[in-house]
Amino acid sequence: MGTVTIPARSKAPVREVAVEQPGPGQILVQIAWTGLCASDKSLIHDEWRPLGVDMQPQTHGIAGHEGVGRVVAMGPGVAERGLWKLGDRAGIKWITNVCRTCHFCKQVYQGGEVLCTHQTNSGVSAAGTFQEYCLTSADYATHIPDTVSDEEAGPIMCGGVTAYNACKRSKVRSGEYIVLIGAGGGLGHLGVQYAKALGMRVIAVDGGSAKGDLCMKLGAEHYLDFATTPDMAKAVAEITDGLGAHGVIVFAAVAAGYAVAPSLARSGGTIVAIGLPGDPAVLAGAPPVMMALKQLSIVGSVVGTQQDVDEALAFTARGLVHPMLTKGTLEDVDKFIEAMVSGKLPGRAVMKIGK
Amino acid sequence: MGTVTIPARSKAPVREVAVEQPGPGQILVQIAWTGLCASDKSLIHDEWRPLGVDMQPQTHGIAGHEGVGRVVAMGPGVAERGLWKLGDRAGIKWITNVCRTCHFCKQVYQGGEVLCTHQTNSGVSAAGTFQEYCLTSADYATHIPDTVSDEEAGPIMCGGVTAYNACKRSKVRSGEYIVLIGAGGGLGHLGVQYAKALGMRVIAVDGGSAKGDLCMKLGAEHYLDFATTPDMAKAVAEITDGLGAHGVIVFAAVAAGYAVAPSLARSGGTIVAIGLPGDPAVLAGAPPVMMALKQLSIVGSVVGTQQDVDEALAFTARGLVHPMLTKGTLEDVDKFIEAMVSGKLPGRAVMKIGK
Amino acid sequence: MGTVTIPARSKAPVREVAVEQPGPGQILVQIAWTGLCASDKSLIHDEWRPLGVDMQPQTHGIAGHEGVGRVVAMGPGVAERGLWKLGDRAGIKWITNVCRTCHFCKQVYQGGEVLCTHQTNSGVSAAGTFQEYCLTSADYATHIPDTVSDEEAGPIMCGGVTAYNACKRSKVRSGEYIVLIGAGGGLGHLGVQYAKALGMRVIAVDGGSAKGDLCMKLGAEHYLDFATTPDMAKAVAEITDGLGAHGVIVFAAVAAGYAVAPSLARSGGTIVAIGLPGDPAVLAGAPPVMMALKQLSIVGSVVGTQQDVDEALAFTARGLVHPMLTKGTLEDVDKFIEAMVSGKLPGRAVMKIGK
Amino acid sequence: MGTVTIPARSKAPVREVAVEQPGPGQILVQIAWTGLCASDKSLIHDEWRPLGVDMQPQTHGIAGHEGVGRVVAMGPGVAERGLWKLGDRAGIKWITNVCRTCHFCKQVYQGGEVLCTHQTNSGVSAAGTFQEYCLTSADYATHIPDTVSDEEAGPIMCGGVTAYNACKRSKVRSGEYIVLIGAGGGLGHLGVQYAKALGMRVIAVDGGSAKGDLCMKLGAEHYLDFATTPDMAKAVAEITDGLGAHGVIVFAAVAAGYAVAPSLARSGGTIVAIGLPGDPAVLAGAPPVMMALKQLSIVGSVVGTQQDVDEALAFTARGLVHPMLTKGTLEDVDKFIEAMVSGKLPGRAVMKIGK
Repeated sequence: MGTVTIPARSKAPVREVAVEQPGPGQILVQIAWTGLCASDKSLIHDEWRPLGVDMQPQTHGIAGHEGVGRVVAMGPGVAERGLWKLGDRAGIKWITNVCRTCHFCKQVYQGGEVLCTHQTNSGVSAAGTFQEYCLTSADYATHIPDTVSDEEAGPIMCGGVTAYNACKRSKVRSGEYIVLIGAGGGLGHLGVQYAKALGMRVIAVDGGSAKGDLCMKLGAEHYLDFATTPDMAKAVAEITDGLGAHGVIVFAAVAAGYAVAPSLARSGGTIVAIGLPGDPAVLAGAPPVMMALKQLSIVGSVVGTQQDVDEALAFTARGLVHPMLTKGTLEDVDKFIEAMVSGKLPGRAVMKIGK
Repeated sequence: MGTVTIPARSKAPVREVAVEQPGPGQILVQIAWTGLCASDKSLIHDEWRPLGVDMQPQTHGIAGHEGVGRVVAMGPGVAERGLWKLGDRAGIKWITNVCRTCHFCKQVYQGGEVLCTHQTNSGVSAAGTFQEYCLTSADYATHIPDTVSDEEAGPIMCGGVTAYNACKRSKVRSGEYIVLIGAGGGLGHLGVQYAKALGMRVIAVDGGSAKGDLCMKLGAEHYLDFATTPDMAKAVAEITDGLGAHGVIVFAAVAAGYAVAPSLARSGGTIVAIGLPGDPAVLAGAPPVMMALKQLSIVGSVVGTQQDVDEALAFTARGLVHPMLTKGTLEDVDKFIEAMVSGKLPGRAVMKIGK
Repeated sequence: MGTVTIPARSKAPVREVAVEQPGPGQILVQIAWTGLCASDKSLIHDEWRPLGVDMQPQTHGIAGHEGVGRVVAMGPGVAERGLWKLGDRAGIKWITNVCRTCHFCKQVYQGGEVLCTHQTNSGVSAAGTFQEYCLTSADYATHIPDTVSDEEAGPIMCGGVTAYNACKRSKVRSGEYIVLIGAGGGLGHLGVQYAKALGMRVIAVDGGSAKGDLCMKLGAEHYLDFATTPDMAKAVAEITDGLGAHGVIVFAAVAAGYAVAPSLARSGGTIVAIGLPGDPAVLAGAPPVMMALKQLSIVGSVVGTQQDVDEALAFTARGLVHPMLTKGTLEDVDKFIEAMVSGKLPGRAVMKIGK
Repeated sequence: MGTVTIPARSKAPVREVAVEQPGPGQILVQIAWTGLCASDKSLIHDEWRPLGVDMQPQTHGIAGHEGVGRVVAMGPGVAERGLWKLGDRAGIKWITNVCRTCHFCKQVYQGGEVLCTHQTNSGVSAAGTFQEYCLTSADYATHIPDTVSDEEAGPIMCGGVTAYNACKRSKVRSGEYIVLIGAGGGLGHLGVQYAKALGMRVIAVDGGSAKGDLCMKLGAEHYLDFATTPDMAKAVAEITDGLGAHGVIVFAAVAAGYAVAPSLARSGGTIVAIGLPGDPAVLAGAPPVMMALKQLSIVGSVVGTQQDVDEALAFTARGLVHPMLTKGTLEDVDKFIEAMVSGKLPGRAVMKIGK
């Protein structure tokens, strides 16, 4: 098996590293495609060091957590448990393993293993998917349904499940209105599709007619361009019998999204915080008097459980949700990051690994 | 029946007004005791005019929404429905009636009639309980259980149900930890008792040893004095196996309470906004990255449904919750308001009406 | 306004009765179309007398509770409240009014006003919709959306909301499997459509290829014909990865449906009882050991709240759910009942009233 | 370490078997006390063979699943993970391990790992706790809080968590009524205490004054003796304002309990099936018309998740729940089984293991 090609951390050249063999409970996955997420950029550019989050030595500087490929080796005990066989298609996620014994792994009613205090993460405590061969936990890797291609499955591993879970956390029911702020972006365009698949009526908010066209094509009922909508609360009220939307998801990592969200929700509604602005002064919140009188809920969400990922994939398997893909190879990682930062990357970037 | 004695709006003398007879669907209640709530102060002092909330002419300047007394007259149709008979004890609340036909009255799964867009409110659109004889809706007034005294029932009508509902909105389960910020105050001391009655383990936060003694006596397991606790998050973590509390209720109307609350909650936990600071720049909220990684929920709450009030009263009927009362008469209203503003009013003030 | 034409109770000829004028809180609705429900048959044929349910004198022997028409008169107080204006389209349901003050009307978290112990019902305690002019409560009648025709709205009033609410009570989520037993019948064919609109994956069970064609056309993914499926549990398991369905609704009023249902549900699943067999020995249930080991839930459901009706109508307004109609006039009531009893009535019968 | 003493399967003498050393992920627990559960009796007496459940060869005929003792050896990898250290107190349960990868282990929202299709069980697929040294999974064994004694912790492992979880599954809230049928028995007396700790108002049903005294002492508000209560539904209605109880748990494994339960529940209420009658014709159920009109829910429950066990133990650690113990040694197992079968065993039997 020899060596693998991995991308440079920051702007260094792609290089080769030795392939490790799977230990007990591990599988080795030959990555075919991997998605690129904004947090890969943050890790590669050392942006999270002030938060105490850094790429640890064992990552060898390899980020990436939307990887899909084939199982090419199994560690001791894996085959016996019947979990995987050689050639199976496996997905690797932001969370690569959990302890299954901490308070959060057990206290499933409150979010499940996503809150595990001992979890390992791609690109932080485990080498990620920006490489040809990636070792991972047999228990926590995801089986990819036959009818989902590698390149579509990649972005579901993080972007898809985050968008899907945000829709669920909104508690909006089928037939009710949801506003998606940043609906035309990498996460948002997935949110439009999941919300629609869940029966919600989507009011998409973003900037420019291209994003408007995309949102409407993906199933939004209304598009509100922030550049040309002077009073967003009034515009949403007009669509919703004057009551506001049942839920609002802020996909855009911008202060203006969080500032306007509470005024778009009807009484009893829920606002979901997904976009993560760099400025620590930006709060997902509202004045207490508004919170109380409107009985609002504001909730945070990120990625999802194993089960959430399976569910998110199943929508793609049924043809209901398709990530919009900008394709390339590992050599394009810096270019894609630049496009992402400048808001010019359509959908999600996926990179082909190997030949 | 002649005339009634009512308190002055602002600092004018108590005066007499004509007693109206109940119309269809109404009852006339001879008030025996009425509680005093911070919002009475806000109304009497015209503090909510900037928000568009004002005492309308039909209130005759009479505030008060924690009133309890006896039914002395019934309008057409009331007796026939068997809802009330003369001499029954009735409670009058902040909400005096709802439309029962709007979206919110029907959409019970999201908060119930509390969000009714056509509700009438004591002291705003209906004369309140700071008077001897108060007209109100037969449908929406509350039956007082035999084993609850008038003076204890009064503060349950608003303060009690608000504290009780806040506990429910926290979603903290029996055996789990809840932090109550402002636990020794008028609302907070009721919150301690309701939380305990619901099986929660209470960590009370307030200032001074007198409030600490009160909280511990009422059932708190721990008292943290903000004046002598330099790192509140650390103190809560030490009590909760390093994880933080399952829920936090901010009863205190202070910015510091909202600022610290998210750091006291464990991942997956809920923060409930009750205290209403005057400064509109204070948000109930947290940075999106914290919301997302900890999967926090922040919810607002105020008063409760008719059913919530019945439930809140039932705890007092069973001897589990007792408001701490500072007693007086209508002549004491200005004195009590001053004490409340300066934080020196123990528990809730209740005023005896009539002889 | 003069007189109205009403259908015979049992097999007597259609006759005329005086039109009453609306009292306080009432509206008079000129019925345009009314649906026919199996419970109308039970009432007209005195089948529920052993249960203590009988058409009371004030019904004048007039059944019917899926009526839709126009408001032609309003009692005192109605216009002032802005609830209705002359010419508005109104729907009349099984429940015609509730007390809004009993334990169940207030205890909204457990089913809402549907459980009201003082409710009035069409054909039992109030004259029903099998007449030209029907008096009803302004508060409880339903506004019909512009884009829903009278004849489609009728069956939504009872059959539609019952099917919709059954789907909600199943707790099956979007993307999960639901088995509908009796999917091709009057209730079942609405269930197929609501389940699909809620994102569920429908496994339809009924007899014969015509019903199979109907179910598949309406959105079922699978059709299992009980006449040709020797082992229904095995057939459902094959579709559902060997696990069984997440939910099962028994629309058919037959013992065999209740007997097989628990074996079709996966562990943790829910069975909803809708069909009402005449034989009191038939139970919706399962052996305790099966209930415990599979952690099953079995729940009953019938009609729904006002809000449920609004939601059920909204799906038709959006073009997602259409009752299949067999049309006639009041003169056809006995003929339609016979067809219903013999299982030969396609969809729901609706009868045009007046010219 | 040599040999261990184990009890006989059926009536054979206690004998010695070799102690196995823990493999990867395993710990060896020196059992101090073990409880006796009715299912131990069923296994030892081969009663479940018709259901396909049998003591497999690897159990060496050793039943028991309420065992508590000390960790005396750890397999490879356990110490490194910090899960256990020598001398820690560990509890072993009915479920000894789960796969953590099947649909049910992941689909936490529907019951969690209790439904795992690959679980191993004490006395069926793993040797149980009726022995001195018991091997078990380090991941799934339970840490025992310091303030809970070994002999009290034992019965919490199965009986306690089953009673606790039944209370939770009832969805009865603090301040609401719950009827416990068989409240004075081995499971029921734990149910009384957990229900009380959860704030429920307990109506205990059982036979005889001794059980009545026990129930009242443990916190029941009412005791109804089935031997002297001719109309149980009427008796419960009188206590509950004529409405019935919010929930009913059938702890007794008798047909009469299941027959009467639906009539004791109020509309919207829940019935929990715990007792497992031997007669397969007994159903937990109700006629569909009753299910529908009362909107009842019937749910099954058995044991609980790891987290449920931790919670159940925490109530004992706080002094709120104490199993009533009948103490003996392994030599008493047949005697205790006889007493259990004849209904004469007070509380739960616990057996001291070793010296």
